[in-house]
Amino acid sequence: MFDLKPYLEVQRQRVDASLKSYLGPEDASNSRVTQAMAYSVMAGGKRLRPILCIAGAQAVGGDHEAVTALACALEMVHTYSLIHDDLPAMDDDEKRRGKFTCHVQFDEATAILAGDALLTLAFEILATTASQCQAAEHPKWLRAIGKIASAAGCNGMIEGQMRDIAFEGTVISIEQLEALHGLKTGKLIQASVVSGGMVAGASEIQLQALGAYAAHIGLAFQVADDILNVTGDPERLGKATGTDQARGKNTYPLLIGLASSQHLAGQLVDKALNALAAFDKKADPLRAIARYVVERNR
Amino acid sequence: MFDLKPYLEVQRQRVDASLKSYLGPEDASNSRVTQAMAYSVMAGGKRLRPILCIAGAQAVGGDHEAVTALACALEMVHTYSLIHDDLPAMDDDEKRRGKFTCHVQFDEATAILAGDALLTLAFEILATTASQCQAAEHPKWLRAIGKIASAAGCNGMIEGQMRDIAFEGTVISIEQLEALHGLKTGKLIQASVVSGGMVAGASEIQLQALGAYAAHIGLAFQVADDILNVTGDPERLGKATGTDQARGKNTYPLLIGLASSQHLAGQLVDKALNALAAFDKKADPLRAIARYVVERNR
Repeated sequence: MFDLKPYLEVQRQRVDASLKSYLGPEDASNSRVTQAMAYSVMAGGKRLRPILCIAGAQAVGGDHEAVTALACALEMVHTYSLIHDDLPAMDDDEKRRGKFTCHVQFDEATAILAGDALLTLAFEILATTASQCQAAEHPKWLRAIGKIASAAGCNGMIEGQMRDIAFEGTVISIEQLEALHGLKTGKLIQASVVSGGMVAGASEIQLQALGAYAAHIGLAFQVADDILNVTGDPERLGKATGTDQARGKNTYPLLIGLASSQHLAGQLVDKALNALAAFDKKADPLRAIARYVVERNR
Repeated sequence: MFDLKPYLEVQRQRVDASLKSYLGPEDASNSRVTQAMAYSVMAGGKRLRPILCIAGAQAVGGDHEAVTALACALEMVHTYSLIHDDLPAMDDDEKRRGKFTCHVQFDEATAILAGDALLTLAFEILATTASQCQAAEHPKWLRAIGKIASAAGCNGMIEGQMRDIAFEGTVISIEQLEALHGLKTGKLIQASVVSGGMVAGASEIQLQALGAYAAHIGLAFQVADDILNVTGDPERLGKATGTDQARGKNTYPLLIGLASSQHLAGQLVDKALNALAAFDKKADPLRAIARYVVERNR
């Protein structure tokens, strides 16, 4: 049986070390906007997207140094989206991961620009890393960059955030909720796994399987998050619970109940595992992560 | 003598048609965030950056269809920066180009996300366009993408905006002002000309010359803008004048006087023209644009 905990720890350290080298210190030797970028990126978090990217590359036997850069770019895109989502004009959150959000710690203008700068830096890193790869690798990288941009853009993550804001305070259908999450978090999670596979040389059939895996765990992750907001321990999570209900947010527990939500999360994980049926043990990290997504609920 | 006016008109139409096809209609057949993106991008403007990009490609004899995509991506990066700069937390502007700014016409959350989405779409277009080029073109495109990201990021445009906010209300030196503009507007203007030359196959020496040309006209453009804010006609400009002084903004007229500012702008244009000495008449559009930058003052 694959032991996930040390794997996650090793990959998290690998990603954190690389993120740190991209962003520099959080102190005054750095410009204010770079301090804010470093503050938010180094605030912790599970590094789910970068680790999924690395595990996606490993599943097809192609993990290499450039994959770390790709993984870091994905985490920067994710962090930028959190900084902007937390802004007063959006979710107006004061805390995240137990620390002040970027606009509280710095100021609103700096937070907007730090988010912008992280998104921009992500693409700079992607283009620079791809440039340094052999010419034969360029088409794969360009495809991966396009995939990430598409997933993060106005037909992906950003449209998801627009809907999330629009739907707040109104009851929506389970189909609308699923579409919302598919956009807001699903597409970038999918792009993480698939882009990792892509630059590692996955075949089209393998990319489809990785995409299906990721679509299922992306949704499972969201269902699990909704459940944790009801049942979780604020201390352990580093953020308040019960906030979704207080805000009139549409969640799986609200729309289909807690027991059905837990059942659904389990089903999604099974589907994710089925999608990997043709992969050998190199996909064990992806399999273990799928199980972890629901197990962290218990 | 090269006739700039019809040239600008033809290139502007080329860019506008392509921008429109990327963004779709501004009406309700489009999602709200896409409407906001289209609203701000199609609000007009001189299309200086895209036209400089096209003229940069033409200067080395390499204008082709993919250059239009590159030019559009640059305009999207520029428009995103305007949308975010206009936000209440930044410059808090209500009008731009005679129309309401994005957050006034839509709302603040939508404006933040529309800016984010334009930046993201720019990189999606760049990656997709590069993918469709022949493999031999990929290194040039990756380099151009890296150049644009670097120019727009935390060591370029974003750092410039940070300083602009930090300096407001304090008197700075002419050196600080020059550094500010070099970052806030200069780097992206430079990336526009250079990336156009890059994907068109410019040599390293040609790229250096294009970079020097662009650095000078970028600064000349800013000096001219500062002058226009003092001497310009609000009706023709589509925006209020005298606003810089009212805000205590650091400008060339404030720091060195109006006459010296006009002299400086002329000097910078001369330097820009000198940088193009080794180019043949294919660089005439670039030359004419350099002259236009100061002539619009008169």
